[in-house]
Amino acid sequence: MAEKAPIIRFGIMGCATIAIKVSRAISLAPNSTVVAVASRSIDKARNFITAHGLPEGTRAYGSYEEILEDEGVDAMYVPLPTSLHLRWAVATAEKGKHLLLDKPVALCVADLDRILEACEANGVQYMDATMWMHHPRTVAMKELLSDQGRFGTLRSIHSVFSYGGGDPYFLENDIRMKPDLDALGVLGDAGWYSIRAILWASDYQLPTTAVAISNPIKNAAGVLLSCAATLTWDDGRFATFHCSFLTHITMEISIMGSRGVLNLTDFVIPYEESSAPFTFVSNSGFNEGSLGWIAPPEKYKVSTEIPQEALMVQEFSSLVGEMKSNGSKAEKKWPEISRKTQLVIDAVKASIDNGFQPVQVGK
Amino acid sequence: MAEKAPIIRFGIMGCATIAIKVSRAISLAPNSTVVAVASRSIDKARNFITAHGLPEGTRAYGSYEEILEDEGVDAMYVPLPTSLHLRWAVATAEKGKHLLLDKPVALCVADLDRILEACEANGVQYMDATMWMHHPRTVAMKELLSDQGRFGTLRSIHSVFSYGGGDPYFLENDIRMKPDLDALGVLGDAGWYSIRAILWASDYQLPTTAVAISNPIKNAAGVLLSCAATLTWDDGRFATFHCSFLTHITMEISIMGSRGVLNLTDFVIPYEESSAPFTFVSNSGFNEGSLGWIAPPEKYKVSTEIPQEALMVQEFSSLVGEMKSNGSKAEKKWPEISRKTQLVIDAVKASIDNGFQPVQVGK
Repeated sequence: MAEKAPIIRFGIMGCATIAIKVSRAISLAPNSTVVAVASRSIDKARNFITAHGLPEGTRAYGSYEEILEDEGVDAMYVPLPTSLHLRWAVATAEKGKHLLLDKPVALCVADLDRILEACEANGVQYMDATMWMHHPRTVAMKELLSDQGRFGTLRSIHSVFSYGGGDPYFLENDIRMKPDLDALGVLGDAGWYSIRAILWASDYQLPTTAVAISNPIKNAAGVLLSCAATLTWDDGRFATFHCSFLTHITMEISIMGSRGVLNLTDFVIPYEESSAPFTFVSNSGFNEGSLGWIAPPEKYKVSTEIPQEALMVQEFSSLVGEMKSNGSKAEKKWPEISRKTQLVIDAVKASIDNGFQPVQVGK
Repeated sequence: MAEKAPIIRFGIMGCATIAIKVSRAISLAPNSTVVAVASRSIDKARNFITAHGLPEGTRAYGSYEEILEDEGVDAMYVPLPTSLHLRWAVATAEKGKHLLLDKPVALCVADLDRILEACEANGVQYMDATMWMHHPRTVAMKELLSDQGRFGTLRSIHSVFSYGGGDPYFLENDIRMKPDLDALGVLGDAGWYSIRAILWASDYQLPTTAVAISNPIKNAAGVLLSCAATLTWDDGRFATFHCSFLTHITMEISIMGSRGVLNLTDFVIPYEESSAPFTFVSNSGFNEGSLGWIAPPEKYKVSTEIPQEALMVQEFSSLVGEMKSNGSKAEKKWPEISRKTQLVIDAVKASIDNGFQPVQVGK
């Protein structure tokens, strides 16, 4: 009889709003549980545990140092502001705890490399908390995109992620607008998702060049509120993306091939938890006389029993479980794609900073 | 009793494939009829009349000069290759015939200005044959985009028009690939529509700057098969578009505002003739806990009794009818937006030709 997979015990480092969603996801994932929460104030940690129905006995800590000493914590979910990631993600790895790190994962690839080196050196699993990657819709779409007969050759990708619509309260108060906390602004926040989508659609082949579009919008502190860029590959493929805090919620990916086109408009957070739509059209064209189309796009809907963030936790815990039970090595896919995402962010940022000139994407 | 609107009598100058669709549209429009067809060969003109069921008595001509002398022709539909437009569009106007000119209307704005000056000097109506402008869907969408409470401020626009998927026969034989016939290639052909869509969505305010994306694809003769560009306005708005003969049929417009987002995926030729869909979402956002959306986009479907190309002919003939019956002046909107479209094409072309540097859009 196979041994039951271990239940991975999570600590949560910081009571950010997103931690509410992820702590619920940890509870929903069958192989995961929350055992500890830390905040800079122990009262805040206690309130978080009570207010969000975490398991009885969940331990509260009033400092990040303390939760790192808890030997009952296998893995840490870290939703701290980006500027604190380097210190606390490295500390987490050095304590031998597996790391589920929220995005943007670092301020630059040099910082991320220090985090990844610490994970590697300490034999812990690393994963960034990009939830949509784990929805079964993402798998279903990739199957279609990989079908040469139905999708053909990838030609171009376009993605938008925006939200907030320029709401003044959000723009004045959110940590995403503070240069000392989240210096990458909307590029690290919303842009992260579109860049990941572009890499995902291109089988993680890094583009050669990034060029920012010339009119990004920044706040008075210099933090990006809206920007866009084009990414090009040497073979003629290209991608465009746009991220904004000034635009109504938009979550588009369009992926265009020689034989098919895939579209979705809720890629980051599906309209509803239990299923997610997309459309795909293949080998269509103009009908006789160009009066219409041979066939319109087909509508797909992919169900999921637990939400994508719980699937993310489940996947992470499954990898950690393999390491604990069988001595498996950490899965390298997750740090690799995280690093590629950061490389593209860095190149776009460099293009914005150098007056919208083309920038070679790093390696 | 009001006088019945006159039936406008069309000549068709050139038997291009698109003339089949437009001659059918002229027959479907209640105020229009085809009375003459010209080709460089009279047999070709005769065959066209028979093969496509044009009215009995439709006159066939073996030269463009002859059809211009036909005093029973009120208006000319001109679907000739672009390089022939300057000569024959000007000749049409000089013969006092109203001009429905297929796109791309000219090789550059200087040529278009000579055509428009000839129309103005001879008191004839000018319209480019951009069919989707005349669909009632276009009107319905504009109403939503003009609603400040539902759409807010325009932030960005993205459009794609592609077809052909790189089909070798199409790439080798179509006139769109011949530098002496359609020197603007895909930019003048498919790009025309996306640029028009961007101008339409921005209330025809010209962008300030165009920058081409750095990896357009050309054929051996130097004709553009795929290109893309970004357009920016001084107030932070921007647009991106992509046009291609190498990609599966794609016809997207996404228009993003501070309070709403509009999407459609069949803007040039709707999936079917009798109705056309789009989606619009307004004042949505993340629901409690960011587990989904407050409300997904609403689906709209706009019916039409006659297809958009027949509505185009009807609108053109209605303007011509007003001029004939009531001595009205030509409607200036159509030459103005045609000229703005050409100005943007010229700027994108200049950016491609100058190594993808920013180019100021002309006035």
